[in-house]
Amino acid sequence: MHKRGRFPVAILGATGTVGQRFIQLLQDHPWFKVVALTASDRSVGKKYSEACHWILPDSMPDYVKNLPLVSTLPIDVDTPLVFSALPASAALEAEPLYAKKGIVVCSNASAYRQEPDIPLLLPEINPEHTQVVPAQKNNRGWSGFIVANSNCTITGLTVALKPLQDQFGVKRAMIVSMQAISGAGYPGVASLDIFGNVIPYIPDEERRMEWEPRKMLGSVQGESLELADFKISAHANRVPVIEGHMLCVNVEFEQKASLEEVAQALRHYQAPEISRNLPSAPPSVILLKDEANRPQPRLDICAGNGMTTVVGRLRPDSILDYKMVILSHNTIRGAAGGSIYNAELLVSQGLL
Amino acid sequence: MHKRGRFPVAILGATGTVGQRFIQLLQDHPWFKVVALTASDRSVGKKYSEACHWILPDSMPDYVKNLPLVSTLPIDVDTPLVFSALPASAALEAEPLYAKKGIVVCSNASAYRQEPDIPLLLPEINPEHTQVVPAQKNNRGWSGFIVANSNCTITGLTVALKPLQDQFGVKRAMIVSMQAISGAGYPGVASLDIFGNVIPYIPDEERRMEWEPRKMLGSVQGESLELADFKISAHANRVPVIEGHMLCVNVEFEQKASLEEVAQALRHYQAPEISRNLPSAPPSVILLKDEANRPQPRLDICAGNGMTTVVGRLRPDSILDYKMVILSHNTIRGAAGGSIYNAELLVSQGLL
Amino acid sequence: MHKRGRFPVAILGATGTVGQRFIQLLQDHPWFKVVALTASDRSVGKKYSEACHWILPDSMPDYVKNLPLVSTLPIDVDTPLVFSALPASAALEAEPLYAKKGIVVCSNASAYRQEPDIPLLLPEINPEHTQVVPAQKNNRGWSGFIVANSNCTITGLTVALKPLQDQFGVKRAMIVSMQAISGAGYPGVASLDIFGNVIPYIPDEERRMEWEPRKMLGSVQGESLELADFKISAHANRVPVIEGHMLCVNVEFEQKASLEEVAQALRHYQAPEISRNLPSAPPSVILLKDEANRPQPRLDICAGNGMTTVVGRLRPDSILDYKMVILSHNTIRGAAGGSIYNAELLVSQGLL
Amino acid sequence: MHKRGRFPVAILGATGTVGQRFIQLLQDHPWFKVVALTASDRSVGKKYSEACHWILPDSMPDYVKNLPLVSTLPIDVDTPLVFSALPASAALEAEPLYAKKGIVVCSNASAYRQEPDIPLLLPEINPEHTQVVPAQKNNRGWSGFIVANSNCTITGLTVALKPLQDQFGVKRAMIVSMQAISGAGYPGVASLDIFGNVIPYIPDEERRMEWEPRKMLGSVQGESLELADFKISAHANRVPVIEGHMLCVNVEFEQKASLEEVAQALRHYQAPEISRNLPSAPPSVILLKDEANRPQPRLDICAGNGMTTVVGRLRPDSILDYKMVILSHNTIRGAAGGSIYNAELLVSQGLL
Repeated sequence: MHKRGRFPVAILGATGTVGQRFIQLLQDHPWFKVVALTASDRSVGKKYSEACHWILPDSMPDYVKNLPLVSTLPIDVDTPLVFSALPASAALEAEPLYAKKGIVVCSNASAYRQEPDIPLLLPEINPEHTQVVPAQKNNRGWSGFIVANSNCTITGLTVALKPLQDQFGVKRAMIVSMQAISGAGYPGVASLDIFGNVIPYIPDEERRMEWEPRKMLGSVQGESLELADFKISAHANRVPVIEGHMLCVNVEFEQKASLEEVAQALRHYQAPEISRNLPSAPPSVILLKDEANRPQPRLDICAGNGMTTVVGRLRPDSILDYKMVILSHNTIRGAAGGSIYNAELLVSQGLL
Repeated sequence: MHKRGRFPVAILGATGTVGQRFIQLLQDHPWFKVVALTASDRSVGKKYSEACHWILPDSMPDYVKNLPLVSTLPIDVDTPLVFSALPASAALEAEPLYAKKGIVVCSNASAYRQEPDIPLLLPEINPEHTQVVPAQKNNRGWSGFIVANSNCTITGLTVALKPLQDQFGVKRAMIVSMQAISGAGYPGVASLDIFGNVIPYIPDEERRMEWEPRKMLGSVQGESLELADFKISAHANRVPVIEGHMLCVNVEFEQKASLEEVAQALRHYQAPEISRNLPSAPPSVILLKDEANRPQPRLDICAGNGMTTVVGRLRPDSILDYKMVILSHNTIRGAAGGSIYNAELLVSQGLL
Repeated sequence: MHKRGRFPVAILGATGTVGQRFIQLLQDHPWFKVVALTASDRSVGKKYSEACHWILPDSMPDYVKNLPLVSTLPIDVDTPLVFSALPASAALEAEPLYAKKGIVVCSNASAYRQEPDIPLLLPEINPEHTQVVPAQKNNRGWSGFIVANSNCTITGLTVALKPLQDQFGVKRAMIVSMQAISGAGYPGVASLDIFGNVIPYIPDEERRMEWEPRKMLGSVQGESLELADFKISAHANRVPVIEGHMLCVNVEFEQKASLEEVAQALRHYQAPEISRNLPSAPPSVILLKDEANRPQPRLDICAGNGMTTVVGRLRPDSILDYKMVILSHNTIRGAAGGSIYNAELLVSQGLL
Repeated sequence: MHKRGRFPVAILGATGTVGQRFIQLLQDHPWFKVVALTASDRSVGKKYSEACHWILPDSMPDYVKNLPLVSTLPIDVDTPLVFSALPASAALEAEPLYAKKGIVVCSNASAYRQEPDIPLLLPEINPEHTQVVPAQKNNRGWSGFIVANSNCTITGLTVALKPLQDQFGVKRAMIVSMQAISGAGYPGVASLDIFGNVIPYIPDEERRMEWEPRKMLGSVQGESLELADFKISAHANRVPVIEGHMLCVNVEFEQKASLEEVAQALRHYQAPEISRNLPSAPPSVILLKDEANRPQPRLDICAGNGMTTVVGRLRPDSILDYKMVILSHNTIRGAAGGSIYNAELLVSQGLL
């Protein structure tokens, strides 16, 4: 379909930090063309450039400057696909109404992540999870549907665990996150709170970190998604970094594996064929660094245009089996870039 | 002895960051009086104020400004006690020569931490470890002796584990550190490396973090110190924080304990009587915070004048038994303040 | 009066950053005792410790933890003196009502700074400006009165200009500020805006910087305060610093002065006798640093307990006459500490 | 000449921060091909990837990884053009030897900036300054020659002053810089010195800031470059920003000009025709921002791929004539990118 021209798409919640990333990443997208932007009531009717406090380093793309903001609800867009950068509460109300109207929603919000018939999709990991989409539509009486992104913190972990689970079985994982301020949106974290500081708590984050990977690495069982059977224990910290969520991970396998086998599993992992050549697919799903002091957010965050998961410091662990450090770009792979990659998958699967 | 006037003491390596903390903390010390400062060859003969690039927020105390710097080696001080803020390689050579000459060395260096007859001393935790001092003197033919501080990163962990080991037995602990830049000395970490970044590696740090707590929580066995029998697995990270090393910890006990029992153990821990009322003793050894988002380096680092270990986020762990966050002041409790507290203990034990 | 016990005082707007500083600085104040705290409607009735997100490094003092918050308006305190940490709009409404009721208001708000019968008071600079207080009361039919602090950015400049104006006459001054994030209150500046960044604009700040010093260095003319006759041109910048506003200043005098004369004028300036020995009076009004690279916020901000103005880099200027750098603690000297110093002056002048 | 293949070039001092930028910017350069890299003695013989601590966000380009490092002196390269990223003292010795050997040196070092027969070149500003090259060669008996970059701090100022000098004549300018840490090289500024701090001093920087713009805006007088006749007074500050030097500027003109005329002069400035379409030429020489709070380093530093000078906050000044804020990318426009642009100019002028 995209051969005959780019798909028209809309961005819901276009003025926030994730909305801005969508706009930036879709600027020259080969398949999708942004034709509508929604915002909250007080911005409706304004031009995007008037209503948006743009905070990304590269300038606001020209193509959106004069687009008028329309309401999220009542629905005022008629594109077949929308990207949702809505806050959780707004998403909770709006996304089902879009799906009911026949629109496909690629959502970055947490509102429906726990539903067993709504895929938490990572195209390089679990593209087959879209098999529950027909049941979702059927169950809910929707002509459209929703697929969701996972929490940005856990994306890198899930990607790195996938080849390990496939080859050795994952039994338990302990993770400590050091998360960037951009993960909290804008205005988000007050500078007085985080300057030269670490905040060892992010509301409701650890619960998600302990649950979502199990859904993404789980399996399709008839009409719903079943959780993978392993345990995660998480600490969530906010650190003074702008972009890039880093995780210290200890993992235990079902089967014994040598260090070299683990390294090979990470190094050679490839996305399933259907996801491998999509426009947003990273050149390498996982980049395993050998240097002792990597990955680092400032140096490695843009690997694969922000879509590659960077792993380093792989070494044996005296308590569980192996230790490693995982870095993922929280506003690209973990948010807007991930949703776009999801939409590309839906196109290639014929669901769009 | 200190009744008749303050002990004269010297500081070895007085111009560095730890040396500066010694000078600051000893400014009005009731028992010790700094009468000599040593430095490396190129500074010998200069006045302290000329040779030192002072980097602490409060000004250089007047009392040291005009003190002349003397050589570390050959020994040019004749105080009964010296505080060593020497780098590891200089300490390796110099400290035994001081001890041989009859001088007591309270060292902040890592050079002799692994020797079984040299105590790694935390007065609030293991004052009885000085029982190996006579053997140390005897074995080595020294008329003085050395006691060492532990690594600054691990001090807080050891303090917090002590009551837990006493009551429940510690079996395994997993720790992830987020360490301040001041732990690397001066000039230490380049701003271009750490600004808006996390470095997931500190050379040789994890090995120390996994070993030193076992020595400090170990026992005196005749003439030497035996390691406690538990396992630690560590990740060490450098974060953009000036002072305060924070640890995310998961711990497993030998015996089951309720959350309330663990909290009580931490909250009610008291230093052994001999250490409890020393000048540097913190009002509370451990401060257990109830707020969900504490401790934080910027807000909690000065608890107990930088001598209290602050613990928070105590909660059950789905893999080991409990999780918590521990904060300790790396240049006060973990370095200069700790050495001074050690010297006070030696005085009260009659070893000085 | 304070001989017979400490004055009861209230703090208006006690939960914000300036309110917190008032609470901290008044903890052991010899003359004033905090007996009441006000807050906005949604906090009224709560205990202070429940309603306040405390963000200062030292813990919330015990003495306020259980104080109940009362309303700012309608007036629910009956102390003879209140310290106002209200936002400008709330101050605009509330402060006159307090004054009308016979209460003396030492205000940190900008609401009434421009009134010619309301002193902008710096006790070490212009204590005689309280001579307009009787006219203020008379004009406005108030039995109490208001004295105000100046903008925190301009306090250090005004202090440093005072001896120069006295001795050489100030003709023109150009200033560029580099202001700390704490000057914007809490939550104030979003971390995403200021991290690794400089914002070259602070709304309405430059206008105040160009006007307020002229009022403070002006003279009492009958019933009102007349502006000093010199020109200021200002640039205001926000920089990633927690506390301490620093200014680069170029100044031109009416009379020629040698570098040494200027240095002497700064170095030897003393507060007028009535202000010199008040509890909050800094040991030195001005500290002139000789080191080439000082003052620096992190190293010099606590000079004189945050009440001393630190000047450095004094040198000739090829365009105007001299250049220098000025540092002042924005939340102590420039805010809460300044208001308390003002109140002390009012006591010693018999106005309280 | 470049039609028939890319020029072979060498980079002197290739492992430092500026050397790294040269390597990054020359990666796909249409005219120049890096064939040799020099380093100090201890790195000679190693592969670039072994000897270089790469600190730029994007990875080390593959093309240099296996290039062997050769000595700077004795000369071990035979390219017609070298880019010098040498430190000042090494440049002082080496650059004349290269020029003597017939090599053209585009230098980023300060060593020869003050020589009246060595151009300080900004192609968009003073391409005619290369007219002194024949005299330089003749005077010094060189078959090659040197052209230099200006100090990175002053590049943006000089660019912005050019159209103003052309149209209104510049009489005096006062500047206060807020400079990024990357301007100090690597390891450069210690994190303990600059974290949450401002350092109001950079050795020898102000002298250069007051002199170099006068040379660049000066004129060719026979065999040498004569300084423009205006005065600059500078304050230099280091701030916690990674890249982007920002200046607050007050300027006085010879002739009166309206705000709109000044804005137009900045907005419509174009590079001389010979420089306008070179590969490194920015799309706009100057970008004048209208938003009240711009430019900001984090948001605007990459304008024109880091080659555009961004100006904002243009407004009348009550002391001189106008005030503004200027931002320039210190390691691209102000260093490596500037040298490359210079070399492109030399090619288009037939000097290479």
